[in-house]
Amino acid sequence: MRRLNVALADRSYPIVIGQGLLANTGLIKEHLRIPRIALISNVTVAPLYRTSLERGLMESGVEVTPVILPDGEAYKNWESLNQIFDALLIARCDRATTIVALGGGVVGDLAGFAAASYQRGVPFIQIPTTLLSQVDSSVGGKTGINHPRGKNMVGAFWQPKLVLADTDTLQTLPPRELSAGMAEVIKYGLIRDLPFLEWLEANMDGLMARDGELLAQAVERSCANKAEVVAADEFETAKEGGRALLNLGHTFGHAIETGMGYGQWLHGEAVAAGTVMAAELSRRLGWLTQSEVDRIVALLKRAGLPVSGPMLGATRYLDLMSHDKKVIAGSLRLVLLQGIGNAVTSAAAPREEIAAAIDACCDA
Amino acid sequence: MRRLNVALADRSYPIVIGQGLLANTGLIKEHLRIPRIALISNVTVAPLYRTSLERGLMESGVEVTPVILPDGEAYKNWESLNQIFDALLIARCDRATTIVALGGGVVGDLAGFAAASYQRGVPFIQIPTTLLSQVDSSVGGKTGINHPRGKNMVGAFWQPKLVLADTDTLQTLPPRELSAGMAEVIKYGLIRDLPFLEWLEANMDGLMARDGELLAQAVERSCANKAEVVAADEFETAKEGGRALLNLGHTFGHAIETGMGYGQWLHGEAVAAGTVMAAELSRRLGWLTQSEVDRIVALLKRAGLPVSGPMLGATRYLDLMSHDKKVIAGSLRLVLLQGIGNAVTSAAAPREEIAAAIDACCDA
Repeated sequence: MRRLNVALADRSYPIVIGQGLLANTGLIKEHLRIPRIALISNVTVAPLYRTSLERGLMESGVEVTPVILPDGEAYKNWESLNQIFDALLIARCDRATTIVALGGGVVGDLAGFAAASYQRGVPFIQIPTTLLSQVDSSVGGKTGINHPRGKNMVGAFWQPKLVLADTDTLQTLPPRELSAGMAEVIKYGLIRDLPFLEWLEANMDGLMARDGELLAQAVERSCANKAEVVAADEFETAKEGGRALLNLGHTFGHAIETGMGYGQWLHGEAVAAGTVMAAELSRRLGWLTQSEVDRIVALLKRAGLPVSGPMLGATRYLDLMSHDKKVIAGSLRLVLLQGIGNAVTSAAAPREEIAAAIDACCDA
Repeated sequence: MRRLNVALADRSYPIVIGQGLLANTGLIKEHLRIPRIALISNVTVAPLYRTSLERGLMESGVEVTPVILPDGEAYKNWESLNQIFDALLIARCDRATTIVALGGGVVGDLAGFAAASYQRGVPFIQIPTTLLSQVDSSVGGKTGINHPRGKNMVGAFWQPKLVLADTDTLQTLPPRELSAGMAEVIKYGLIRDLPFLEWLEANMDGLMARDGELLAQAVERSCANKAEVVAADEFETAKEGGRALLNLGHTFGHAIETGMGYGQWLHGEAVAAGTVMAAELSRRLGWLTQSEVDRIVALLKRAGLPVSGPMLGATRYLDLMSHDKKVIAGSLRLVLLQGIGNAVTSAAAPREEIAAAIDACCDA
């Protein structure tokens, strides 16, 4: 069992990573205010892990109110959130009830925003079951839902009391989702951890073959990177760098997700294509060499990820990107690379260069 | 102009109270991150104050996106919240945009929760235009919406950057709303400020006649009391007393509001009747004398407030009260009075005594 700490003063919390953790209900119980939880999951994950987790908790005296949502990004909306509120109110859950998210990023974001806003805030625990959520969305306190006019436009910063990443759950993950999660793992290497990127290049085959020990190492190193970034910039208010660096590829990626309609591209797939666009733009600004761009593309490919975006047209991309939350006072700030392992936030790229980078990285 | 400070470390903010403040747009502008606001108001308040405020702001270079909502507690719901999100997204408001609430408690709660959750949080300014919102809801950071299953069940703690209480706006307030606000003013005297209660007894006729100077004094003293309580217990986590004391009469009152359907009773009216119930219950526990209960009833009557609740039946009251957010782990904690000017939170009252107090304070 590996244990990390996210250092956020009175909101600090542990991330526990390892195999077989779901059977260890004591880990969960010690973080509850009263022995009562609402267990939020979805129709895909619940059949795999709900029964044993629920039984373990109930045997140790914890009352469980389950809420099983439909699966998919398309359901990360007000209706699902309200389904949670309804269940909590019918079961008369009070402010001491802990909301537990069992599932991927969508479940975590929904359950987290429900925890942030139910009765103005109740305790929250993340049990991420996908690679993407284990290495990214479960850590850092970002929660929220999508709005028809934009992804993640409504939400809150709400830190969990505990993140429990059982890497055994990755064995049942569909291959496409394993790849999507790997896009964020690679991201940590690209933005701030060159030794980790080299380790990923050396071990990508084993990771894609789901070697348990390698996966646990990759999750731990990713979470350690994220925890450091979040601790330094909890609310994404840093003027330069900070938490915004975690969004490498994301502004392009959000445009792909929104432009194609939620659910067509997985988040990690869109981030992978977006990362290539960011790398290409960095090259055009003279900050990366062509061989560095090629190196990034090669690693993403080995992880089974797309390395070009859909042909929406650069104008449509730019329009969608201008809706992104990273836009401050109208200027398009992007996360770019000044060498591999060193990301920066920059508004230096002229609009025509951004458009050219997009065009160069779209399918014909 | 009177100025108070709500002391909440890096979330501290001023409350400015006085006459003619709406014309002083400089006060608002100095608290903006960028010269851009979304002005949230309703169809009743907007015709009175919007044009001059908007013109003043625009003349000083502030871009204004207005959002005018329907009026009433019945609209404190997801649909109105979404109307705000829609307008913000259409106008491409970014994270630096300040949301300004111009109106009563419903507008403030809605706009505040929109500010808390739009793009995971944007700055917020309160310009309360009712007595109730000037002395209570605009101060302290509680925001939220109603849920069909319970009042204020979804929301956030989100502190404003500034509260601007222009007491001139109280001159246009309907008499029923002036009375409703006075219920919360009287509350501060009852729970923690006996000298203020005595001042209210001496000046209630002048206050109800809307003497500008007396109203400004009452708003200032109320806000000073609230600011002290909030500063000591921002998130209502104190085990005993603390912010919960502000809820004198509110658990009974919420039962009246929910039981009668939102919008039938004004919040302050329900609080007044609930305060009489709390006083009667305190008397039954031996904590107040009959003459103290009579004194409370007399002052509420002079403020034009109801002093008995609707005949829902004690069982229905208790059922509705058990849904209240103040319920922790099933036990019904109430705010009661141990003498006038000294409130306590207590779970000491047996269920049958609560029922008897309700029955004694309901219309036949």
